[in-house]
Amino acid sequence: MKRIELDAGKLLERVRQNKPVVHHLTNWVTIYDCANIIKALGGSPVMAHAKEEVAEMAGIASSLVLNIGTLTVDFVEAMKIAAKSANKKGIPVLLDVCGAGATGLRDDKCFELLDEARIDIIKGNSSEIARVAGEKVRTKGVDASSLNLNLQKIARDLSSKRKCTVVITGETDIVADEKRLYLVKNGDKMLSSVVGTGCMVSSVIGVFAAVERDLLYSAAAGLVCFEVAAECAAKESVGPASFKERLFDFIFRIDKQTVNRMQKIEG
Amino acid sequence: MKRIELDAGKLLERVRQNKPVVHHLTNWVTIYDCANIIKALGGSPVMAHAKEEVAEMAGIASSLVLNIGTLTVDFVEAMKIAAKSANKKGIPVLLDVCGAGATGLRDDKCFELLDEARIDIIKGNSSEIARVAGEKVRTKGVDASSLNLNLQKIARDLSSKRKCTVVITGETDIVADEKRLYLVKNGDKMLSSVVGTGCMVSSVIGVFAAVERDLLYSAAAGLVCFEVAAECAAKESVGPASFKERLFDFIFRIDKQTVNRMQKIEG
Amino acid sequence: MKRIELDAGKLLERVRQNKPVVHHLTNWVTIYDCANIIKALGGSPVMAHAKEEVAEMAGIASSLVLNIGTLTVDFVEAMKIAAKSANKKGIPVLLDVCGAGATGLRDDKCFELLDEARIDIIKGNSSEIARVAGEKVRTKGVDASSLNLNLQKIARDLSSKRKCTVVITGETDIVADEKRLYLVKNGDKMLSSVVGTGCMVSSVIGVFAAVERDLLYSAAAGLVCFEVAAECAAKESVGPASFKERLFDFIFRIDKQTVNRMQKIEG
Repeated sequence: MKRIELDAGKLLERVRQNKPVVHHLTNWVTIYDCANIIKALGGSPVMAHAKEEVAEMAGIASSLVLNIGTLTVDFVEAMKIAAKSANKKGIPVLLDVCGAGATGLRDDKCFELLDEARIDIIKGNSSEIARVAGEKVRTKGVDASSLNLNLQKIARDLSSKRKCTVVITGETDIVADEKRLYLVKNGDKMLSSVVGTGCMVSSVIGVFAAVERDLLYSAAAGLVCFEVAAECAAKESVGPASFKERLFDFIFRIDKQTVNRMQKIEG
Repeated sequence: MKRIELDAGKLLERVRQNKPVVHHLTNWVTIYDCANIIKALGGSPVMAHAKEEVAEMAGIASSLVLNIGTLTVDFVEAMKIAAKSANKKGIPVLLDVCGAGATGLRDDKCFELLDEARIDIIKGNSSEIARVAGEKVRTKGVDASSLNLNLQKIARDLSSKRKCTVVITGETDIVADEKRLYLVKNGDKMLSSVVGTGCMVSSVIGVFAAVERDLLYSAAAGLVCFEVAAECAAKESVGPASFKERLFDFIFRIDKQTVNRMQKIEG
Repeated sequence: MKRIELDAGKLLERVRQNKPVVHHLTNWVTIYDCANIIKALGGSPVMAHAKEEVAEMAGIASSLVLNIGTLTVDFVEAMKIAAKSANKKGIPVLLDVCGAGATGLRDDKCFELLDEARIDIIKGNSSEIARVAGEKVRTKGVDASSLNLNLQKIARDLSSKRKCTVVITGETDIVADEKRLYLVKNGDKMLSSVVGTGCMVSSVIGVFAAVERDLLYSAAAGLVCFEVAAECAAKESVGPASFKERLFDFIFRIDKQTVNRMQKIEG
C-alpha cells in the first residue's frame, strides 16, 4: 500500500468555518467529553434523548452520533427515532457499537439499530466490530481483546453487508468501505489510559462527516486530526490527565499544516 | 447608564462562609461541572432527581437550580415537585432554559414550569430567553443565534410578566427585574469554546442567590465573580482545557479585592 | 495502636498487572471520574445499568461498585440484580452509601440493598455510615457533618451486624471488620474541594478488592494509594482543578516505593 493523499487539515478548517451542529444520543460516562471535543473543534454539540424531541432535533443537526455505552431499552428506542429522522433528512448517522460482545443486550440492540435504520458509519474497536460482523468474540469490558482475526477483511465484508463505512480503531485504525480501505497509523499509547477517547473519536468523525459526504474520506480525516493532536499532547504530558488537557488544547489550536505534515495514512 | 456599586467580592466571601447547599436537577452533560463549581466556591452541591426524594431535599437546601439541557417528560415532573417544595420553603428557584427554541418539547416544558411553580430567576442566552418571552426564534442547538432583538426590553417585559429576575448571557450580560437593569461586561471569548459555561453560570448564580435574597444583586454578583475568574484564567491559557482548569482554580482562590477591582458593571 | 505492615505498593502493582474489570452502577455526577480512576490505575471500568444486562456483566467483572448518589427506584432494582449476580459469582461488592441520611428514600434503599444482597464493603463518610448503622443523624447534602459519635465503635458494630468490611472516610479514615481495625491518616484537605473524591475512593477500593480478597487489607491499601497520590498532587497545585489533574497523573505513575514510604497507617 502507498501513502495516500488526504487533506485532513483542509477538512479541519471546513469544520471550524461551518460550525456544524452534531446531535448525540450517547452514554452518560463520556457525554461531556463528546460534547466538548465538538466544541473545541468549533462545532456545536447537541445532546438530547427524549423520544418526544429527537426527531425534531434532526431539523437543526448536520450529523447524528449514536453510542450504546450505557444503553437501556428505552434509550435505544429514542436512537431509532432519531436515526430514522436523520435518514429522512439525509444527514450521516454514525453508530459507536461501544461494548458490543459484552452482553446479549448490546449485540441485540446493535443488530436492531442496523436493521431498522440506515447507519452510515459503524465504529468500534476490533472485538466490538468483529462481534457486529457476526464473529463469536467476547468483549472484556469495552477494551479490545487480542484477537487473531483478519480485521481488514471483516471491515470490508461488514461494509459490504451493511452498505456503510466501517471504522476499526486500534494501534492502526482501519477505515473501509466496499471498495476502498485506509490505514491510519497516528496516535499515542496514552490514548488507552484515558476513558472515552474512543467515544471522542466517534464525535470527531461525526463532525467531519457533517462537512464532507465522502464518509471514508471524512472518517479518515477525523482520525488523523484527533490522533495527531494526541501525539502533540503526549510530548508535553506526564500522565493521562495532563495528556487529556493538552489533547483538547491541541484539538482547538492545531493548524492545517501540522496535521498534514504529521499524518501517517496508507491506502 | 453609570457604573454601579456592587460589592460582588463581599457576596463571594459570604458564599465561602455560609457554604450553602444548592440542590440541582440538571442535565447529564455538565452535571459534574455544575456540582464542582459550587464546591470550588465553598458551597455544597446536591444533585438528586428521584421524584420520591426531591421535595425532601428542599429541606436541606438553600436554593434550587433547574436546567432542562437533557430533559425528559419524567424529569420535568420531578423538577415541578422540587420547585413547589422550594416555593413552600421560600428558597430561590433558578430555571436555566437551556435549548429553548430548539424543539417544541423544550418550549412546552419551560412554559409548564413557569406556569406551575414560582421561578425566581430565568436564565438563558439571547435566543433562549427570546423564545421563552414569546418571540418566534429558533435556537440552533444551545448556542445563541444572532438576533436583531431589543434584548433589554425583552428581559424587562419577561420579568414583569413572570414576576422574576431575568438573566440573558452574552458578550454583555443583561440582568433585569421589573424596575432595575444591570449590564455585566466581564468575561472572555474563551468561555464560548468550553461546553457548560452557561450551565456553570446558573449554578454560580444559584449559590449567590442562596446568600442574598435581592436576586438582581446576587445574580449580577455571581456573573461578575465567574467572569472575572474567566478573565484571569484566559491570560494563562493556550486552549479551552487549560482555560477551564485555571477557571476553576481562580474561582477557588480569587479574592474579594480582585473581583471588585476588575468588575465591569453598569446599571 | 502501632504502625502496621501494609504493602499497599505491592497491591498497586498487582492491579496494574491484572487489569481487573470493575463493573459500576454509580451516579451521573462522577461516573466519568470513577471510570477514569480505574483506567489510570491500569484497570478496566465497565459502567452498565440496564436491568437486562447487569447480571451478565458480572460474567466479565472481577468486582462490583454500587453508588446511590443519583439513585432512582428503578436504578436500585438494577443494582440488586447486579449484586445478586456478583454474589453468585463470588466477586466482591462495594456499596457507597452516598447521601444516606439526606432523604428517607436513600435510607430505605440502602437498607433494602443490605438486606437483599450480600454487600462485602460498605463505604461512606461519618454521617452516612452512622445513618446506615441506625443512628439518627441527618446528612447535610453529601458532606460529613460534625458529629459527636464513636466512629470506631459504629464501624465495628456495623461490620458485625452486616458481616462486611466498613470504610468511613474523613481526615482519618477508619477501615474495620469484626476483629480488626485500621486507621489511614494520609490525604490532603484539597480532596474536600473537589466533587467526587469520595466516589473515586470507592472505585479505587473496588479495583483493589478485585485483586486481594482480604478486603480489610485491600480497602486500606486502596485508600493509602489514593491519598498518597493526593499528597503528591497537592504539593504541585494552586487550586482544585490543577490538584485533580495532578492527582490522576500521580495515580497513573506513582511507584510502589513512594506509596510504601509515605503511607501513614495504624492498626
